[in-house]
Amino acid sequence: MNHLKPAGEGLRTRVFQIIFESDTPLAKGFDIALIGAILTSVLVVMLESIPGLRADHGAWFYRLEWGFTLLFTLELAVRLYCLERPWQYLRSFYGIIDLVAILPTWLALVLPGAQSLVVVRLLRTLRIFRVLRLMEFVGEGRLLIGALVRSSHQIFLFLFTVFMLVTIFASLVYLIEPAEAGFTSIPTAIYWAVVTLTTVGYGDITPVTPLGQAISVMVMLIGYSIIAVPTGVFSAEVIRSIRADRYSDEACPGCGYDRHEKNARYCLRCGTWLDEDTPDPRQGDDDTTTPRA
Amino acid sequence: MNHLKPAGEGLRTRVFQIIFESDTPLAKGFDIALIGAILTSVLVVMLESIPGLRADHGAWFYRLEWGFTLLFTLELAVRLYCLERPWQYLRSFYGIIDLVAILPTWLALVLPGAQSLVVVRLLRTLRIFRVLRLMEFVGEGRLLIGALVRSSHQIFLFLFTVFMLVTIFASLVYLIEPAEAGFTSIPTAIYWAVVTLTTVGYGDITPVTPLGQAISVMVMLIGYSIIAVPTGVFSAEVIRSIRADRYSDEACPGCGYDRHEKNARYCLRCGTWLDEDTPDPRQGDDDTTTPRA
Amino acid sequence: MNHLKPAGEGLRTRVFQIIFESDTPLAKGFDIALIGAILTSVLVVMLESIPGLRADHGAWFYRLEWGFTLLFTLELAVRLYCLERPWQYLRSFYGIIDLVAILPTWLALVLPGAQSLVVVRLLRTLRIFRVLRLMEFVGEGRLLIGALVRSSHQIFLFLFTVFMLVTIFASLVYLIEPAEAGFTSIPTAIYWAVVTLTTVGYGDITPVTPLGQAISVMVMLIGYSIIAVPTGVFSAEVIRSIRADRYSDEACPGCGYDRHEKNARYCLRCGTWLDEDTPDPRQGDDDTTTPRA
Amino acid sequence: MNHLKPAGEGLRTRVFQIIFESDTPLAKGFDIALIGAILTSVLVVMLESIPGLRADHGAWFYRLEWGFTLLFTLELAVRLYCLERPWQYLRSFYGIIDLVAILPTWLALVLPGAQSLVVVRLLRTLRIFRVLRLMEFVGEGRLLIGALVRSSHQIFLFLFTVFMLVTIFASLVYLIEPAEAGFTSIPTAIYWAVVTLTTVGYGDITPVTPLGQAISVMVMLIGYSIIAVPTGVFSAEVIRSIRADRYSDEACPGCGYDRHEKNARYCLRCGTWLDEDTPDPRQGDDDTTTPRA
Repeated sequence: MNHLKPAGEGLRTRVFQIIFESDTPLAKGFDIALIGAILTSVLVVMLESIPGLRADHGAWFYRLEWGFTLLFTLELAVRLYCLERPWQYLRSFYGIIDLVAILPTWLALVLPGAQSLVVVRLLRTLRIFRVLRLMEFVGEGRLLIGALVRSSHQIFLFLFTVFMLVTIFASLVYLIEPAEAGFTSIPTAIYWAVVTLTTVGYGDITPVTPLGQAISVMVMLIGYSIIAVPTGVFSAEVIRSIRADRYSDEACPGCGYDRHEKNARYCLRCGTWLDEDTPDPRQGDDDTTTPRA
Repeated sequence: MNHLKPAGEGLRTRVFQIIFESDTPLAKGFDIALIGAILTSVLVVMLESIPGLRADHGAWFYRLEWGFTLLFTLELAVRLYCLERPWQYLRSFYGIIDLVAILPTWLALVLPGAQSLVVVRLLRTLRIFRVLRLMEFVGEGRLLIGALVRSSHQIFLFLFTVFMLVTIFASLVYLIEPAEAGFTSIPTAIYWAVVTLTTVGYGDITPVTPLGQAISVMVMLIGYSIIAVPTGVFSAEVIRSIRADRYSDEACPGCGYDRHEKNARYCLRCGTWLDEDTPDPRQGDDDTTTPRA
Repeated sequence: MNHLKPAGEGLRTRVFQIIFESDTPLAKGFDIALIGAILTSVLVVMLESIPGLRADHGAWFYRLEWGFTLLFTLELAVRLYCLERPWQYLRSFYGIIDLVAILPTWLALVLPGAQSLVVVRLLRTLRIFRVLRLMEFVGEGRLLIGALVRSSHQIFLFLFTVFMLVTIFASLVYLIEPAEAGFTSIPTAIYWAVVTLTTVGYGDITPVTPLGQAISVMVMLIGYSIIAVPTGVFSAEVIRSIRADRYSDEACPGCGYDRHEKNARYCLRCGTWLDEDTPDPRQGDDDTTTPRA
Repeated sequence: MNHLKPAGEGLRTRVFQIIFESDTPLAKGFDIALIGAILTSVLVVMLESIPGLRADHGAWFYRLEWGFTLLFTLELAVRLYCLERPWQYLRSFYGIIDLVAILPTWLALVLPGAQSLVVVRLLRTLRIFRVLRLMEFVGEGRLLIGALVRSSHQIFLFLFTVFMLVTIFASLVYLIEPAEAGFTSIPTAIYWAVVTLTTVGYGDITPVTPLGQAISVMVMLIGYSIIAVPTGVFSAEVIRSIRADRYSDEACPGCGYDRHEKNARYCLRCGTWLDEDTPDPRQGDDDTTTPRA
């Protein structure tokens, strides 16, 4: 959100700093209060969905929901008010989420039932990452995401293979098993195959013929074994990321040792000065001494 | 498919380049259109298997299926037409798949029911790998497959052990549990044991006696723990593969040893200086000494 | 428990050494006997919970339970008796567990039903770690806990992401699926989503609409794939921990840097020769040159 | 079985070589035929357990079973006949398995029902490892077993923790859930907790109260996450084993580089001769030249 700029007045700038930044105590307090309000409003939606509670306290839930909607509408209005270019914010990631979070209640005035969509409000808790950003979570999150991105091609290949296997086995079992066992169509059989391959195993659809059970056993063993593929790929990537973070690849010009930590200035094996762009401080008082490899 | 050769005429060669190669825009477009047609035809087979849709739109599905079959038959005919040795292609991997993909519909004229086999058409999407080949997927897929191949012995040992455990526990539970609980035969008990060990857990057959439940608990804990084996083996292989980038293919000019790490400056077997572009630092102060292989 | 001190008399000190320490044969024997008694008492509580056994041998279970409670009360009394500051122990981790382990039976005199809580007695088996402490388990346990602690931030991020996914998918399926399928409220749908994402798959609540099943398939594939994240992170941490044996604790005499690899001969920060028992080879041909920090 | 010695006669020695060794074509053929017979006899036991097949072909199964039992009894007799010390073999691992594999059928003459135990015959397929021994499986199996043994302490700690968690959560849910939901005793609740924690999820016993479901969710998330522990530990061990196999820890005396492959004779960075016990062949014709670091 660094690209956002406050409208150029005193009050607006101060409000901007509280709402959009997180580096003053007040701004941090605002962020935490906002996340608290978001979580509470999500909790209210969840509790309202429980039939018993809705029957007894329906009026309260209704008031609370409108309360939160008005609060979040006000917050969005203030956000837009103190920005130089409000439309830019409304088209940004957080702007869309802010809008989407208040829309369902307003929509429900027109379309009954739209209210249930209020749970999308949960997406607003993504703002929590703004608070986390101040802590040391970010580096580690970035490391994880980096590893995921670098292994994404391999994980795509893996999921493609899984999808092929699932479709082929599903079609086979669909041909073999009677419809009474629940295999009423190929899409249903695919649902069963995913349930089986991922080792979820609901048991709502299970093979009843010996041949169908034999194929199930194959699907299970495949699913049980190939989980090693994404795990191995991702593990290797995390290990590579951690190591790349710590060690430099450059070899010592003196002895060639090439596992120096990035913060090393002297070779740990032969004592040669490693930073070739800067003079070795050891040579400051005695020009004739050169490091020896 | 590099071994395939076009028949030596102008038109045939041009068609060959479009159908069998992927390096011109037209050839790439053909590949993508073909994969689109294959996926659509598979989708049609899937939708047709849904009873409701088949009842309402059966005639349409029938026409679509024949349409795709004729299209793929035509495509195969053109493929064979522009080849020097058509039989060679028909016996190749992709040739067999192409043939198998159109057979079921033609067979259904003679044998009703053969139509369901049309899903084997899905195998044709393997052609997608020809398009992927142009992208960077291949190196990574090869890395994964290489790691799988190198860990295959260990995974075979693992699966053999799993099979032994499964059979022994299945026989035990078959002896303990009453047939009413679903353990009607040893093969069924093996099906149950695989369902349990792979943590799928359908729940269609579950132990009802305390002793049977105790053995189940053992099977579950074993299944939960030994998944670490293929995962660990495969992780180690992927890490080894990534690190294998460490090695150069170039042979030592002295002794011919060819598995030097890329950062090697001297041959680890005979001590010969490996970097032919730079002088050996050992020779700086004593010109008459040369490394000996 | 090193901070505990015996009350200063002969008998009390001797009892203290038996009860609170583990380095004499008698003290070790006491520990083992105590753990035996704890496990037996837990076993009794378990067996008593089986309706058939309780009906037949209820009186025996009652007597055994009181026997163990009196035994443990006596043990706690002796513990407190031989300590200089008994209250300090009662507020410690093991003191609270000791108290909590005997309370339920005494409470049951006043509040019927409190007896079932006797299973908390199991927590007393944590004392087993005192015996294990003497063996080589500790270093490895500490390595595991260290790896867990260091990867806790990343695992927290992972669980937070899982929670977000679970809530969003649960809300979606709650909107789509009819209440008759079991999705009666959002909290219930969250229960279903966790059952699915973690690949447990009870099957007590399963989607019945095609759209609900399609979303389930996505949840399953996500759950099946992202297990790679904590596994990869933890694997990398364990490998890093094992490799941390690589580092020496000794500080450089020149600059005080104290994270040198064990094979380091020169300080990576200031180039000082680290091995004080051997002369620096750099000084062999030029005695007047000394490394400078 | 290297410690076994043939009885000292010509025929016995020749039979010994066929039965107990695997290095001649005849001995290998005997091993493979034996494993074939064992697998067939196990298959017969499995098929016999299927009610439909037993009803139709019971007489045949009876004859086949006696055929295999007589065959294996004869084999054991021949084994004992050609050994110097038959009792030594009978008390060995394979001897006990051989005896146990034929006992059930003989026992069934006296005790009806003992026949089902014939499946223990499956243990005889362990002999397959004798054939595998000749192939390259052994090194890899040993690597896996070595890694398992070295990580066994940590896996024991892990299973102990799992057992503690399972018992505590099981007791909690037993107190919370009504007996009608299936939680009839603490042992049954433990069975449920293992089913849940290992992500098997039969669904034969599931929580019905909101509090019970909340605790289930915790058990599932714990089970889903802590699988990372044995996987990480074992992965790290396998990686350590592979590396320990390939690299030596010793540093080069010239430059200190310490990641030399075990087969290295010259340092790959500075060309120094690494094997200090043998003279450098390069110095054979020119005594004044010494490698320089």
